[in-house]
Amino acid sequence: MTATTWKHKDLLGIQELTAAEINEVLDTAAAFKEVGDRAVKKVPSLRGKTMVNLFIEPSTRTRTSFELAAKRLSADVINITTTASSLVKGETLKDTALNLQALNVDIIVIRHSAAGAAHFLSRLLHASVINAGDGAHEHPTQALLDAFTIREKKGRIAGLNVTILGDILYSRVARSNIWLLTKLGAHVTLAGPSTLVPRVFEEFGCRVTYDIDEAIRDADVINLLRIQHERQRQTMFPSIGEYTAMFGLSKERFARTKPDAMIMHPGPINRGVEIDSEIADCGRSVILEQVTNGLAVRMAVLFLCAGRRNATEGTVGVRWSSNADG
Amino acid sequence: MTATTWKHKDLLGIQELTAAEINEVLDTAAAFKEVGDRAVKKVPSLRGKTMVNLFIEPSTRTRTSFELAAKRLSADVINITTTASSLVKGETLKDTALNLQALNVDIIVIRHSAAGAAHFLSRLLHASVINAGDGAHEHPTQALLDAFTIREKKGRIAGLNVTILGDILYSRVARSNIWLLTKLGAHVTLAGPSTLVPRVFEEFGCRVTYDIDEAIRDADVINLLRIQHERQRQTMFPSIGEYTAMFGLSKERFARTKPDAMIMHPGPINRGVEIDSEIADCGRSVILEQVTNGLAVRMAVLFLCAGRRNATEGTVGVRWSSNADG
Amino acid sequence: MTATTWKHKDLLGIQELTAAEINEVLDTAAAFKEVGDRAVKKVPSLRGKTMVNLFIEPSTRTRTSFELAAKRLSADVINITTTASSLVKGETLKDTALNLQALNVDIIVIRHSAAGAAHFLSRLLHASVINAGDGAHEHPTQALLDAFTIREKKGRIAGLNVTILGDILYSRVARSNIWLLTKLGAHVTLAGPSTLVPRVFEEFGCRVTYDIDEAIRDADVINLLRIQHERQRQTMFPSIGEYTAMFGLSKERFARTKPDAMIMHPGPINRGVEIDSEIADCGRSVILEQVTNGLAVRMAVLFLCAGRRNATEGTVGVRWSSNADG
Repeated sequence: MTATTWKHKDLLGIQELTAAEINEVLDTAAAFKEVGDRAVKKVPSLRGKTMVNLFIEPSTRTRTSFELAAKRLSADVINITTTASSLVKGETLKDTALNLQALNVDIIVIRHSAAGAAHFLSRLLHASVINAGDGAHEHPTQALLDAFTIREKKGRIAGLNVTILGDILYSRVARSNIWLLTKLGAHVTLAGPSTLVPRVFEEFGCRVTYDIDEAIRDADVINLLRIQHERQRQTMFPSIGEYTAMFGLSKERFARTKPDAMIMHPGPINRGVEIDSEIADCGRSVILEQVTNGLAVRMAVLFLCAGRRNATEGTVGVRWSSNADG
Repeated sequence: MTATTWKHKDLLGIQELTAAEINEVLDTAAAFKEVGDRAVKKVPSLRGKTMVNLFIEPSTRTRTSFELAAKRLSADVINITTTASSLVKGETLKDTALNLQALNVDIIVIRHSAAGAAHFLSRLLHASVINAGDGAHEHPTQALLDAFTIREKKGRIAGLNVTILGDILYSRVARSNIWLLTKLGAHVTLAGPSTLVPRVFEEFGCRVTYDIDEAIRDADVINLLRIQHERQRQTMFPSIGEYTAMFGLSKERFARTKPDAMIMHPGPINRGVEIDSEIADCGRSVILEQVTNGLAVRMAVLFLCAGRRNATEGTVGVRWSSNADG
Repeated sequence: MTATTWKHKDLLGIQELTAAEINEVLDTAAAFKEVGDRAVKKVPSLRGKTMVNLFIEPSTRTRTSFELAAKRLSADVINITTTASSLVKGETLKDTALNLQALNVDIIVIRHSAAGAAHFLSRLLHASVINAGDGAHEHPTQALLDAFTIREKKGRIAGLNVTILGDILYSRVARSNIWLLTKLGAHVTLAGPSTLVPRVFEEFGCRVTYDIDEAIRDADVINLLRIQHERQRQTMFPSIGEYTAMFGLSKERFARTKPDAMIMHPGPINRGVEIDSEIADCGRSVILEQVTNGLAVRMAVLFLCAGRRNATEGTVGVRWSSNADG
């Protein structure tokens, strides 16, 4: 079922993917994961291909993960970040992207503060476009690595109770996770301050609650989102301290979770804010395994979108068809 | 005539080159251009060599193009930009360069706001020095890629009417193009505001006019320069709007050009300022092909200056002689 | 005596090393130095390994030297600098490091403004940690490259008179040099303004003097430290001019040194401040050779700490034991 399912040149979001396609990414990631344990952590799958990390919004972690993924696939990597970019000269995103493609770049990984930036590029370019986060819209590789981690630890995704806790409204991580988990049959509960968890998310098949104790009681997986306290502190909740008191995963709350409930966080964590520091480091936390799995998932995504042409095609002229205009 | 002509360790400017040497770069670039179309876009010509991108003045496009060129030749690349550089500690350019050479760096690509910076380094170093733009002086790889594009599209350069339009006075692109095009026998016309196109350029064998309609009427090639509106707006012309009205390539003006007149621009373009947005994207615009050709030209330059020693020499001690003190 | 002595996974400081271990680094560096003279300056020792340059405090020179060292050993390199780092989001150094390790990074080269940062990471991580300068504490690769240069030029270190001149108090270079030189049997003299050269350093086996002429008269090696005039100007000495007059290596002072006294400086030099510009460039100055040797020493350190596992081990699970908690 999963073999040779993937037909996209791009990864724009989870919304565009079928359950079979998601599973193909996860299966491919499983095969790549063991590369990270080798003494020589490299395979030749993308040798001679070029990936550009186009980060209009800064992110060391995601950039580093994609850079390593590409290098372990033997691709060449060019990093372009906002401060260094000629975008400061007023060039449009469209022109930047067309220029990169004119350099015969094979893959553009884009992070941008505007929702839809990756979709916009995918329609313009025959290069592969990978969405590394677009505004509050999607962060598909984060959802895929979360799913990979759940499947690896729990053996399945369907039927699990997954609670996502925190700033749902402004979170692309939450959105991508919601699409993915509901497609694969998990029961998703959203919880947090009512200002950050609007009831409208029930339309996506989620349960919404403002009672954190009830939200985590039956959860098999608890995914804590980072509080962007730089931004929403004043307007969305009274104070960081109050957020922690009301919605943080304290030791007391943790003691009332199921004994095998798994703790996830997309990082970087705010120790003592959304999560107690000891819980972040405990045996039921898989936060660092998410990072490890993120590398494998990104290798899989790069390979599926841009790598298989090596085997069957001689030129960049022939491309996989894209249905990525969602 | 062109084979084995090249004897320089550096590329400092077009002024130092003969027509035969220019043609050798273009011929070599033609051979490298097809590498960009391969599935594995790499050749081993500079394997084990190190190139430093020393950008004292920021430029994502040129830096990226050189970085890709080096990587496609299998060289290792180190990027040093102003903000990261120890130049902030007050080290002189001379000491920075000598330190890089002490690391056995083979090639230094330098962009600097001071005219003559590349020439200065070339006299100090036995490493290859490539001028990626020095003040308002020269930008030789830009002129070479422009010439490559003209030759590829028009079949020749000699005898063509080439009009360069815009800020000639402060433009290293204009200067390098003027030297190259006149050496290869093109008829060069310069046009723009009189404050930015002084009559003194007639001494270099160009025609100077302030009548844009007359300047573009018989042109086979129209090369539009970017208006640096951050800098010269107040002093050199009344306003951006007035510049566009008087010298921008509008649809009306475009309609009066020769039917096969080719539109060039070194980028990044200001859509709606020096060029109408639709014209930038039309079939007679070769702006993106210039970018593609820039990569091939830079591969050729790196190979000619630093690559052939691989074949015949065992150590870095023996070097090609340089006549690059112009 | 020197073969197979090295057992550390990390290089944290000179204090932790025995004389035999120091000599093994120097011997290994001698073997790697000739790689820099080859046409193809690469060996496969770290192929498939990943090194992260984690520079929380900026330094183009040291970062570049480590980056080149890793690339010449065929490792993949990821650069993370403060401005780009998610540290700005408030993540702790511990979490940053654990995240990098979760990416199966093999080596973390860390520069940090806090003394002990490298030691802290080494206890957390099974990846190799290389101290590239921690506050005013240690800069071990600088001391190793200085020792390499002395040994190469003078044939030995034991019994030599080495004078270190300048800001000793705040200098990690001075500290690492003092540990190393005294371990290998050199006679170390420290000189400079009394505010910057406290008598307490006599406890480390050094001679302290405030008479520069006496300090340099019998020196075989004079190592000049950079004056950080951005920071200490106002508080530690009256003015740059006065520092130069009282402690700078002028032509007059240089004339009174031993005829074979060797001049060293860790760079970047302040020409005309701590050293006369002509002396910096004279035949007895080895400042640029220090840079060349730094590359070889760093290749040796990376190889000894992280490279030998390739030969004997199949996975990253098995590690060299560390005794690096000093």
